[in-house]
Amino acid sequence: MSDGGASENPPTPLSASHQLWGGRFAKPPSEAMAALNDSLWIDRRLWPQDIRGSQAWIEALEHAGILSAAERQTLHEGLDRVGERLAGGGEADATDEDIHTLVERLLYEEVGELAGKLHTGRSRNDQVATDHRLWCLEAIAALDTEVSRLGASLITQARAGIDLVLPGYTHGQQAQAVRWAHVLLAHTWPLVRDRERLAAVRHRVAELPLGSGALAGSGVAVDRELLRERLGFDRVSNNALDATGDRDFVVELLFAVTMIATHVSRLGGEMVTYSSTEYGFIKLSDDFSTGSSLLPQKRNPDVFELARAKASRTLGNLVAMLATMRGLPAGYSKDLQEDKSLLFDAVDTALVTLPAVRGAMDALEPVPERMRGALQESLLATDVADDLVAAGVPFREAHGLAGKLVRTAEELGTSLRGVPRDRADAIHAALPDILSRLGSFEESTQRRATAGGTAREAVLAQLESLEGRFL
Amino acid sequence: MSDGGASENPPTPLSASHQLWGGRFAKPPSEAMAALNDSLWIDRRLWPQDIRGSQAWIEALEHAGILSAAERQTLHEGLDRVGERLAGGGEADATDEDIHTLVERLLYEEVGELAGKLHTGRSRNDQVATDHRLWCLEAIAALDTEVSRLGASLITQARAGIDLVLPGYTHGQQAQAVRWAHVLLAHTWPLVRDRERLAAVRHRVAELPLGSGALAGSGVAVDRELLRERLGFDRVSNNALDATGDRDFVVELLFAVTMIATHVSRLGGEMVTYSSTEYGFIKLSDDFSTGSSLLPQKRNPDVFELARAKASRTLGNLVAMLATMRGLPAGYSKDLQEDKSLLFDAVDTALVTLPAVRGAMDALEPVPERMRGALQESLLATDVADDLVAAGVPFREAHGLAGKLVRTAEELGTSLRGVPRDRADAIHAALPDILSRLGSFEESTQRRATAGGTAREAVLAQLESLEGRFL
Amino acid sequence: MSDGGASENPPTPLSASHQLWGGRFAKPPSEAMAALNDSLWIDRRLWPQDIRGSQAWIEALEHAGILSAAERQTLHEGLDRVGERLAGGGEADATDEDIHTLVERLLYEEVGELAGKLHTGRSRNDQVATDHRLWCLEAIAALDTEVSRLGASLITQARAGIDLVLPGYTHGQQAQAVRWAHVLLAHTWPLVRDRERLAAVRHRVAELPLGSGALAGSGVAVDRELLRERLGFDRVSNNALDATGDRDFVVELLFAVTMIATHVSRLGGEMVTYSSTEYGFIKLSDDFSTGSSLLPQKRNPDVFELARAKASRTLGNLVAMLATMRGLPAGYSKDLQEDKSLLFDAVDTALVTLPAVRGAMDALEPVPERMRGALQESLLATDVADDLVAAGVPFREAHGLAGKLVRTAEELGTSLRGVPRDRADAIHAALPDILSRLGSFEESTQRRATAGGTAREAVLAQLESLEGRFL
Amino acid sequence: MSDGGASENPPTPLSASHQLWGGRFAKPPSEAMAALNDSLWIDRRLWPQDIRGSQAWIEALEHAGILSAAERQTLHEGLDRVGERLAGGGEADATDEDIHTLVERLLYEEVGELAGKLHTGRSRNDQVATDHRLWCLEAIAALDTEVSRLGASLITQARAGIDLVLPGYTHGQQAQAVRWAHVLLAHTWPLVRDRERLAAVRHRVAELPLGSGALAGSGVAVDRELLRERLGFDRVSNNALDATGDRDFVVELLFAVTMIATHVSRLGGEMVTYSSTEYGFIKLSDDFSTGSSLLPQKRNPDVFELARAKASRTLGNLVAMLATMRGLPAGYSKDLQEDKSLLFDAVDTALVTLPAVRGAMDALEPVPERMRGALQESLLATDVADDLVAAGVPFREAHGLAGKLVRTAEELGTSLRGVPRDRADAIHAALPDILSRLGSFEESTQRRATAGGTAREAVLAQLESLEGRFL
Repeated sequence: MSDGGASENPPTPLSASHQLWGGRFAKPPSEAMAALNDSLWIDRRLWPQDIRGSQAWIEALEHAGILSAAERQTLHEGLDRVGERLAGGGEADATDEDIHTLVERLLYEEVGELAGKLHTGRSRNDQVATDHRLWCLEAIAALDTEVSRLGASLITQARAGIDLVLPGYTHGQQAQAVRWAHVLLAHTWPLVRDRERLAAVRHRVAELPLGSGALAGSGVAVDRELLRERLGFDRVSNNALDATGDRDFVVELLFAVTMIATHVSRLGGEMVTYSSTEYGFIKLSDDFSTGSSLLPQKRNPDVFELARAKASRTLGNLVAMLATMRGLPAGYSKDLQEDKSLLFDAVDTALVTLPAVRGAMDALEPVPERMRGALQESLLATDVADDLVAAGVPFREAHGLAGKLVRTAEELGTSLRGVPRDRADAIHAALPDILSRLGSFEESTQRRATAGGTAREAVLAQLESLEGRFL
Repeated sequence: MSDGGASENPPTPLSASHQLWGGRFAKPPSEAMAALNDSLWIDRRLWPQDIRGSQAWIEALEHAGILSAAERQTLHEGLDRVGERLAGGGEADATDEDIHTLVERLLYEEVGELAGKLHTGRSRNDQVATDHRLWCLEAIAALDTEVSRLGASLITQARAGIDLVLPGYTHGQQAQAVRWAHVLLAHTWPLVRDRERLAAVRHRVAELPLGSGALAGSGVAVDRELLRERLGFDRVSNNALDATGDRDFVVELLFAVTMIATHVSRLGGEMVTYSSTEYGFIKLSDDFSTGSSLLPQKRNPDVFELARAKASRTLGNLVAMLATMRGLPAGYSKDLQEDKSLLFDAVDTALVTLPAVRGAMDALEPVPERMRGALQESLLATDVADDLVAAGVPFREAHGLAGKLVRTAEELGTSLRGVPRDRADAIHAALPDILSRLGSFEESTQRRATAGGTAREAVLAQLESLEGRFL
Repeated sequence: MSDGGASENPPTPLSASHQLWGGRFAKPPSEAMAALNDSLWIDRRLWPQDIRGSQAWIEALEHAGILSAAERQTLHEGLDRVGERLAGGGEADATDEDIHTLVERLLYEEVGELAGKLHTGRSRNDQVATDHRLWCLEAIAALDTEVSRLGASLITQARAGIDLVLPGYTHGQQAQAVRWAHVLLAHTWPLVRDRERLAAVRHRVAELPLGSGALAGSGVAVDRELLRERLGFDRVSNNALDATGDRDFVVELLFAVTMIATHVSRLGGEMVTYSSTEYGFIKLSDDFSTGSSLLPQKRNPDVFELARAKASRTLGNLVAMLATMRGLPAGYSKDLQEDKSLLFDAVDTALVTLPAVRGAMDALEPVPERMRGALQESLLATDVADDLVAAGVPFREAHGLAGKLVRTAEELGTSLRGVPRDRADAIHAALPDILSRLGSFEESTQRRATAGGTAREAVLAQLESLEGRFL
Repeated sequence: MSDGGASENPPTPLSASHQLWGGRFAKPPSEAMAALNDSLWIDRRLWPQDIRGSQAWIEALEHAGILSAAERQTLHEGLDRVGERLAGGGEADATDEDIHTLVERLLYEEVGELAGKLHTGRSRNDQVATDHRLWCLEAIAALDTEVSRLGASLITQARAGIDLVLPGYTHGQQAQAVRWAHVLLAHTWPLVRDRERLAAVRHRVAELPLGSGALAGSGVAVDRELLRERLGFDRVSNNALDATGDRDFVVELLFAVTMIATHVSRLGGEMVTYSSTEYGFIKLSDDFSTGSSLLPQKRNPDVFELARAKASRTLGNLVAMLATMRGLPAGYSKDLQEDKSLLFDAVDTALVTLPAVRGAMDALEPVPERMRGALQESLLATDVADDLVAAGVPFREAHGLAGKLVRTAEELGTSLRGVPRDRADAIHAALPDILSRLGSFEESTQRRATAGGTAREAVLAQLESLEGRFL
């Protein structure tokens, strides 16, 4: 296939001469295997976690009497220098099998044969699980911040829009008059749940696998509590075979990200609708709109469309990881190597989507006259039914009578209030009076003052509850 | 298509004459629409929740002055009688649109026109969300019980198998000698996490949507705290539009079930392997084996195969629900009706799989001689490397030397200990002594005594920690 | 859990005494295993295929000298009687392991010990694959018919709507004026592809596995060509291990159904939008609308919402099957038993959705005045740019100038034609003339007459090409 | 987050000053939007297709009288020079919105203002669909080649292994003796189906969208037949709205890739099992094995494990794309931009997995003595049953008798032939004779000579049929 063809990415790696294994083999890895197997192009970003974990590990080796204080010091400084070489994209041409191999190779370059003591009592199985969990802890913090920022943006818009009334929708159809703030906060409460979930995932991520060896526990009597404390975990893992073969924490974070993305997709989908010419409830700012290469007049809501789409992408990542784990025995299988690229992609997706959506929400402007203009008088039909109930009619009957009123108005091509008195009276004797007293759309919202309702005070109560959590 | 053809299930329903809506329409629902739209065949099982929710609702209506005490009493007793009619599969021929319609229709039959007051201030949107959450609370309790029972079964087998030693595997290859209990507990700890997740889901399920109306809050000033207390929820929902359009609780429970199923699939997959002729580590009992219609000698591990497969099914359900929610606006859309059949299927699947797997685990017998017979001496290579480290060789070098020893033994067609002294000495001077002191497989397990390791005391510590949680 | 609780469905079966295996076992299946393992509640609908396959099989056994002509005759008639007993839901209380066991048990009841010869040289593995493929052939024909009918409905609406002009959308934003027929046919061409795919799936389904035995070929020298011919397959399978463990045909049909459902979801989603108050381009008929239990005025597009949702459900089924097959060895594993419930559900879903959507499309009415009223003059901006190109301006520059014109019109709060001559002239000297000659929306559609364009003749050409295929 | 943190990838792009739109906007795109929206890091590899498509387009513009011959010549050569600049990773620092923008900007650099005529009558919507389809055509050819090569490798191994007999498995349990070639070909026939599917996808990909404009057809009367012929498509698209919003071809190729990956996962899973110590049927070569960083003796089948896992990854991509398309209206929505990264990842995955698996299959060695040694005499139980049938016992009864024989042998701890004559006779009088005549495992395979059976001639027939297709 020509340049630009299907095989361009990932880069075909050539395994470097340094390997963490191979003593038992007569031949080096084939190129075809290395192309499939090598993971440096994916896991290279774990270098800070790998170095941090190794620095904790050598401290534990010193405590266990494997390293002298001087050896530990030399290795620690050597690892610092390796980190300096890797920061900012250094060693870009490295072709090692993975980040662990690269770090160890560079450590050999820095401190010589002493580097050979680093891996004592450790396996890549507990090492990579530790690195990945450290990365997840950082990712969760970053996600929580971005979710919180989006929530704050929605709350700010909601506070400003407390007195804007627009149609509320079910089934994509006008249902009842609601406040703009009511709608925006309906997209905010899911973010509260997202942050709860992130905290719960954090709890399960914060379990240290280091010291589990390959599957059976480390052969060195390392102090796992010391490791835990140094690396900022909450607990140490309980079973070495589980600790090295478990990827629940990856799946659970993928799920939490997918839920976030799904919520943002619902917000995005609704904003796409509201930004259409036909609705026109919001106006996107110029710097959060795109144009068309052919149609000069276009103002496209790409940010919200992509927000709508990205939940599918993260769902795909979640599916891939769950399907990978299904049926695997306990302990490490190479299949689990997929965990990193899938999670990295999902977290990256969320971290690029959330700021864009937040920016677009910050910058959009509601269009009050279009909101108000869209309100159909038939939205007051429920109020009519409620008033019939107040006049003693059982609700089910009242609902049917109000329905007949709507149908009559439709047939006459008029509004509810436009139905002639005699026609209304023919439906139910109380109707003419009820229609004459029928309130405004704003008054209609005020009739729904239960907790969570769209009445002004109920919405204000939501705002007060939320502001403490996000701002 | 002939009888038995593709369109047999679901049954084509004919909508009954009683409808919760329709006053505004000139024509009844078409048969083709009803076949797609009607959900009684799915949601009929929600009848106990529907009646319970309605009984709480009429209490709230009485408090709000909508019903007299006598009316409430009549409705309450009428609902009790409706429940009696529905219990045990009653009213099997009903063709109502959904369970809510059926219950209301039967209530009319029981108490007459007064039934028309039941739905005052309520919408099917908040009603069905309430019913479904009530069902979820029960389902979570049932799932937790079954997960706990499976854990207890594994713990019992592990306690009995503390002194059985077998090969431990990574990459499907023998890696180190481990205890049978170590393996079984590696499948138990995931269940601890599952129960944590179920508790977290329960927390989010236990939020009462009733009183949200269709999207804007109830038009009746019902006491939502009273409803919450009567129905056993922890909190009331905060935003009516979110409360009626939110299905996070469904997705999150689907996810928790999928994680459980994934863990059981890993156990199942491993047991399928161990029950093969080639491994032979376990023997399935006759009542948890199946045979072949053609091959008389077969003893098939169907339970474990199905356990392996079912995680795919629940994953499918999870995907379907997440994909359904993506991009929907806030508030109720009919798309969300899919939530029930997907969740019911996943929970049913788990509740039929868990007892079968537990039964099979209770009844299987380990085969100690096959476990021991499978242990290859090369599993001690890590001990050799560790002993070289103790003799002052840096680990990376020791690992290479042990690898050479393995390769030499392989070339000579002998065991590690069978490598002639001079050949071992040529690899490293310390090797002959190390090989002569090399311990048993049991001694090898005792070298891994860090927390979570496979040494006897470390495994006992796990057992003690777990027994308090499951038994 | 109470009645109505989570474990209600599937029914807990009690395996009947007749079994196709068990000679080697001392204990019957446990209840917990049977509840997981038994599949009669799912595969019972395969009874016509099972009987038909068995009738062909005994013919082959006769040819192979295993059965006398009289025995074959007796068995054939016995199977006919079994079919009569099963038709219309007979033997509803049967608790056999699966449909194959039930049919064989009933055959024993009909013809006595001779029934024991039926299964000679056959395995359930090749039997069930044959039954399922026969079912698929029927399902494909039914799906093709329903897809074709939906296409015909769209074509009829398109023919009637050839002269209705409305905004065409990209990014959910008005883009260019198009014909209503152009939109409807954009949803029809995907159905052409769907039918191509169904035909391709049919080709792969039509491969006969019968005669493969359990995995190694039948031990009886049956004439597989005779079987093929009797059962209406195109080819016989090539490898017995592949034939019994292959479920590609199930996955491929699930995929074809998911594509159909996805296309219908796109149509459904667009109709939901067009039926909103804000768009108002179509009016749903009363018998394809639903109402609200609370809001008397609602007219909900449930059919189109469910059509939008169902593609998620079938996607879930597809995922479940693909994830099930991943990593399985060649040959039959019990995991594959999942294939039937997943496919049945997907096909049932499509066969209930397609007629509902077709009915709704047949019955909806376009609203020409709302279509025309929605057209914004800025949709002509591309025509302006094209006219600038005709006046010698390179397109990229022309596009920018037209964009400036749009911005100017927006700032002035006017239409394109409303921009004062001097302001237009300031943008480009040719603009005033171009604006004065700017045509109607209909004329604008006529400017796009390339194949596939929205000009009247181009749309008519599509109609003619399609009508031959669907009607 | 620190360097190495979660936001490292994708690179944050800064949109370059050249844009294909923007005349109507007062502000440039925000950085946050560009980070989400820009796609150059993904679609850059489409540059050869973009240039090729543009060169065809200008030829059509010349035919339509939009460009002079000299202008076309200048643009054509300019595009050639742009291609030279982009080949081999050139213009690596470009920060344009996408590859189309980059190519147009570079063309301006090469030929000046004339570049502004390139996009006349074209939209990015039809342009990107054309580029992507061109890429798919190349990808399909590359995939077909690699699938064919893997098939050839399996066929070669099968030819060499025609006389090796090993246990065949169902349910992971020994079922009947089969030939090694029978097993390998069971993994080859699915590849025949894969290639059929690739050909079918190719057919649907080869439909030219160019000339569709943004949604309504091109405003320029280009000769679409000329475009089709120049770009090597089979047909032109039929409806501009469908042509620009359709991504069926992407989904269908994702599905074909997932099926390939699923087949390879089944092969991989089976090879992982066979390479275990306990089975030992195959020996991996050194250059297709990996070792352990901790356990010196390990020989890991990473290639086969990753092959097993990768089908989950491609499934995730398929899910993401299908879920993205669900519910979108006809025509282009930005959501569809996800199509490229998902497909590129899936195709790359397949193209790196297939050669690795092929290499591993080429290099592995069967271990005949382990295959033969694993065969259990109970595998002959079906032959015993068949012989009872030949002695006049109905099959169902014969099956039960053979089962009893197996159970008796198990209880006595002996083989079938080891069951004492009187015990056999007690089960059925014909058994002692049958047991004395019972053949070898090889003879057992010869009893299954129906088409697709494991008898030598039947397997040879398969080989002959396949060799013509792959070699």
